[in-house]
Amino acid sequence: MAINGDSNVINRDAFRQAVVNTLERRLFYVPSFKIYGGVAGLYDYGPPGCAVKANVLAFWRQHFVLEENMLEVDCPCVTPEVVLKASGHVDKFTDLMVKDEKTGTCYRADHLLKDFCKDKLEKKDINITAEKAAELKHVLAVLDDLSAEELGEKIREYGIVAPDTKNPLSDPYPFNLMFQTSIGPSGLSPGFMRPETAQGIFVNFKDLYYYNGNKLPFAAAQIGQAFRNEISPRQGLLRVREFTLAEIEHFVDPEDKSHPKFSEVSNLEFLMFPREKQVSGEPAKRICLGEAVSKGIVNNETLGYFIGRVYLFLTYLGIDKDRLRFRQHLANEMAHYAADCWDAEIECSYGWIECVGIADRSAYDLRAHTDKSGVPLVAHEKFAEPREVEKLVIAPVKKELGLAFKGDQRMVCEALEVMSEEEAMEMKANLESKGEVEFHVCTLAKDVTINKNMVTISKEKKKEYQRVFTPSVIEPSFGIGRIIYCLYEHSFYTRPSKTGDEQLNVFRFPPLVAPIKCTVFPLVQNQQYEEVAKHISQILTAAGISYKIDMTGTSIGKRYARTDELGVPFAITVDSTSSVTIRERDSKVQIRVNVEEVASVVKEVTEGQSTWNDMLLKYNAPTVVDDE
Amino acid sequence: MAINGDSNVINRDAFRQAVVNTLERRLFYVPSFKIYGGVAGLYDYGPPGCAVKANVLAFWRQHFVLEENMLEVDCPCVTPEVVLKASGHVDKFTDLMVKDEKTGTCYRADHLLKDFCKDKLEKKDINITAEKAAELKHVLAVLDDLSAEELGEKIREYGIVAPDTKNPLSDPYPFNLMFQTSIGPSGLSPGFMRPETAQGIFVNFKDLYYYNGNKLPFAAAQIGQAFRNEISPRQGLLRVREFTLAEIEHFVDPEDKSHPKFSEVSNLEFLMFPREKQVSGEPAKRICLGEAVSKGIVNNETLGYFIGRVYLFLTYLGIDKDRLRFRQHLANEMAHYAADCWDAEIECSYGWIECVGIADRSAYDLRAHTDKSGVPLVAHEKFAEPREVEKLVIAPVKKELGLAFKGDQRMVCEALEVMSEEEAMEMKANLESKGEVEFHVCTLAKDVTINKNMVTISKEKKKEYQRVFTPSVIEPSFGIGRIIYCLYEHSFYTRPSKTGDEQLNVFRFPPLVAPIKCTVFPLVQNQQYEEVAKHISQILTAAGISYKIDMTGTSIGKRYARTDELGVPFAITVDSTSSVTIRERDSKVQIRVNVEEVASVVKEVTEGQSTWNDMLLKYNAPTVVDDE
Repeated sequence: MAINGDSNVINRDAFRQAVVNTLERRLFYVPSFKIYGGVAGLYDYGPPGCAVKANVLAFWRQHFVLEENMLEVDCPCVTPEVVLKASGHVDKFTDLMVKDEKTGTCYRADHLLKDFCKDKLEKKDINITAEKAAELKHVLAVLDDLSAEELGEKIREYGIVAPDTKNPLSDPYPFNLMFQTSIGPSGLSPGFMRPETAQGIFVNFKDLYYYNGNKLPFAAAQIGQAFRNEISPRQGLLRVREFTLAEIEHFVDPEDKSHPKFSEVSNLEFLMFPREKQVSGEPAKRICLGEAVSKGIVNNETLGYFIGRVYLFLTYLGIDKDRLRFRQHLANEMAHYAADCWDAEIECSYGWIECVGIADRSAYDLRAHTDKSGVPLVAHEKFAEPREVEKLVIAPVKKELGLAFKGDQRMVCEALEVMSEEEAMEMKANLESKGEVEFHVCTLAKDVTINKNMVTISKEKKKEYQRVFTPSVIEPSFGIGRIIYCLYEHSFYTRPSKTGDEQLNVFRFPPLVAPIKCTVFPLVQNQQYEEVAKHISQILTAAGISYKIDMTGTSIGKRYARTDELGVPFAITVDSTSSVTIRERDSKVQIRVNVEEVASVVKEVTEGQSTWNDMLLKYNAPTVVDDE
Repeated sequence: MAINGDSNVINRDAFRQAVVNTLERRLFYVPSFKIYGGVAGLYDYGPPGCAVKANVLAFWRQHFVLEENMLEVDCPCVTPEVVLKASGHVDKFTDLMVKDEKTGTCYRADHLLKDFCKDKLEKKDINITAEKAAELKHVLAVLDDLSAEELGEKIREYGIVAPDTKNPLSDPYPFNLMFQTSIGPSGLSPGFMRPETAQGIFVNFKDLYYYNGNKLPFAAAQIGQAFRNEISPRQGLLRVREFTLAEIEHFVDPEDKSHPKFSEVSNLEFLMFPREKQVSGEPAKRICLGEAVSKGIVNNETLGYFIGRVYLFLTYLGIDKDRLRFRQHLANEMAHYAADCWDAEIECSYGWIECVGIADRSAYDLRAHTDKSGVPLVAHEKFAEPREVEKLVIAPVKKELGLAFKGDQRMVCEALEVMSEEEAMEMKANLESKGEVEFHVCTLAKDVTINKNMVTISKEKKKEYQRVFTPSVIEPSFGIGRIIYCLYEHSFYTRPSKTGDEQLNVFRFPPLVAPIKCTVFPLVQNQQYEEVAKHISQILTAAGISYKIDMTGTSIGKRYARTDELGVPFAITVDSTSSVTIRERDSKVQIRVNVEEVASVVKEVTEGQSTWNDMLLKYNAPTVVDDE
């Protein structure tokens, strides 16, 4: 009876169209600036969408910030260039673009190549040999790894042209995806709209560490807008130019990534898709989280703890656990500095969509800002007792170096001092055995000869009172709009109207997420019932329960159908002045409750102190009224 | 004993410094990107500031959106040029700027002139005659009305130079305050970061009106970031380049601005500063809101209703009602289209600061977008019975006009058709009496002679079934950062420590606003107490109460002082395993409560179901413990 968003449904496009039509018609979201023709990749959340978003964010705050005692911060979107230079975004936050050589229209190079390959394969072009098909599949598999040159070569080889005009295309070149602007009136201070909220946390590490009593581990969190000037936005709410991110940066001692609360999630079992399974072509598999960590499939306990917490967060919201999986990044997907990285992927009509990224980014971000700003973003561990450690000591003999290298003395001296332990110990051995050694000085761009009078290298024992180190960061990063869109698809179903002549739309949002918690309907238009309805609304307002009151004379069945389409879980129908009925959206079962009790019943059920089943038991003699 | 932020305090700067030092030290806010030297006008909210902001916004949603059933929307910050061209921001959202002619440093022209005049007047320069002093005072009074030319003249006349270098200054010229960017990869679609959230609501009027069942009045609301590329930001959190706005657009029939709930606020009495009092030099005065509306001081009931609701909102937050006034805009301050405009101004160490603007903007915004987009943003009132109306009909006789004006015929024809009713009736009378009339055609930039054969003007009776009109909009617009800063100043006081040798800082935030609702302290470090403390924290988490746990061995007095400085209203001290004490921040009075009850006591008091006094009565035998 119900049409589900199952992966088995043949016509995903038709399902998606039904969901999107309902969402746009009921103003969950609409294209922004529609009266001016809209702007690709920008959307407005209308009243129900805005309420769903507020509910998701409030729950995020409760589930992560409050329950884990995180330090929440709120930083500006406008960001000066230096910060994003340090983070690597100015140089590397790019997509490869090609231009229609006649009209100047821009396209993402990888999209064109992907569309070409898919099209050829799907059409089962009879001209395509088995080898050719294998080649196209290979191109699809390695698409994300292709360089600008390789992409350009393929585009030329396959004769790909501009889709709209059939004009030839330029070579691919990188386009930076940040919105650029200028800070202040001089025009001399370039800035960008932040591409993520994380950097605002990293640059504040020192203050936050102090705020936390100079103790590790701790987590900071931020919810806010982020911006990405997509070349050609597609896929509705999934790939947009402005979006809400909720990010956590959990700072931890790299030598101890255990988590005190890991046992609370270790028994969870859900779909995981480790790197090995992807490479060997096996499917994702239900794995127990505790086992995944103990077997080393997941790098460490803290990363595992957040994977578990993300699973709980998404499923509480109403994401279908059978269409949720945690996919590990392949070695070539992961940044060189990352220790491990898992994406929470949700399956919707567009396929498996990355909605949350959970990465162990090691010390990369804090080191990058330390280097660029000169402010050490480090943590200290005081030892209970001083520890004896062996330290490498490199002592250049400046007089000898001066005699040998004159003006170059300083450069040689510095180059000697920054040698790694390995290099230094090798030089020490060579100097002892051969008396001299060739040494490359980068800053001079040449080799020089060092003899044993010019430097002494030794290991000395020293007492240390503390350890100074750069913390590792484990970052769960949530794309709120993507999660909400997938939630819409997972919550949507249709059922026939009473007469059977039309399909009615329903969103089965849990009360936590529902944009409006209940509706108040006088059964018929009369003053007595309307006064009762107003009285109930006042109690609901005071209790902080969002509701919608509908006094129109429309049939009760139609009014139920209208609010089912908004996912309102409970409908209060006023059919007497002493008691009223409450109807549950999905079962259509009703209970009868006193006027004075109705608000507290709705509050208890929507806030989770009681379930609907508790209420069925309490207000017994339930009656199913087939109202549609 | 307590140092207050009274307007009487002589040294406002010292008071401000004490507040700001505490705020920055405890991370309520810090300059953004501090490790890179910061960016003027950009601030980060640290953990307590972020929590205060979240509390203020949650209360705003409850007080306005939920209680008034407003339609909340959420639109992007990135906005295409056409929208802001229609709204007037592209052409008119400017400040006048001057440049140091040698270094290029930019200054706000009015700031330099203001500083010059104030400086001369404050120093009581003996060279200044009484006339000169009067002139300088006059300049200060009319500063906001001066044109670029007038400002330039004054700057030259007074010999004002660049403050840092003493170099000569350029003439003043307008600088647009919007952050500009480019949407998409082509570089051909200019966009801006929105300077306000209101436009996102206006462009959606048609959909929102439909969502509301095609009924007026209704209000839409939006909370979000707005941007203003200030020339030279000053005054800390009060004048920043990025800020959170909360805006309401209440759409109403221009012929009926009554409000059904006005009686709920009409008895409120507070400081109002009507236009007439400002002009005549009288002070602001306590006026009853109902009287202000009935006497026409406030233009209409709906505007009055929102003034009352804003008053309640600000005072619930903890704004001192004696340092809050509603100031009406002077005629020259108000946009030509506005019907009336009042600012909620809060007094702080910087003087009286505009924190909320409440304006009746008439039909201006919807008309502007109707004109630019071609989409009619109008409302309909269906008549119960069709109405007979007199309609002006202007019928140019094209043949005659063609003979007389040849190629200019179309222009003349159009000019005739757009005559106002008054102009048309005057022409009709003149044509009837004189047979011909001189008529100015704007588009030809000349007068032409019209005779009675060229046009017929008449009034015809027609039946109308509905009224089509552009709604008026009443806009309360809240600068959230400014409100929060003023709240900090109004909440701050100091009191001596127990030993009397230092002053301790306290923020007397109401529980609604407090960033953390309570602290949990084991009195001494021992395992039993720590377990009780952890048990209490778990109950608090489940109840959704934010808390801070402090297990350090620091003295209880110091721990109290630390959290008083964060404005935490209640401190739970664990000094036994069965019962604990709860201490109230400002009175320092303690009550003793069972371990199992403590979370619900804190929850009831912070959520407003009970007061602290109720709890004093319930858990009698209160003891004041002078703990500092």
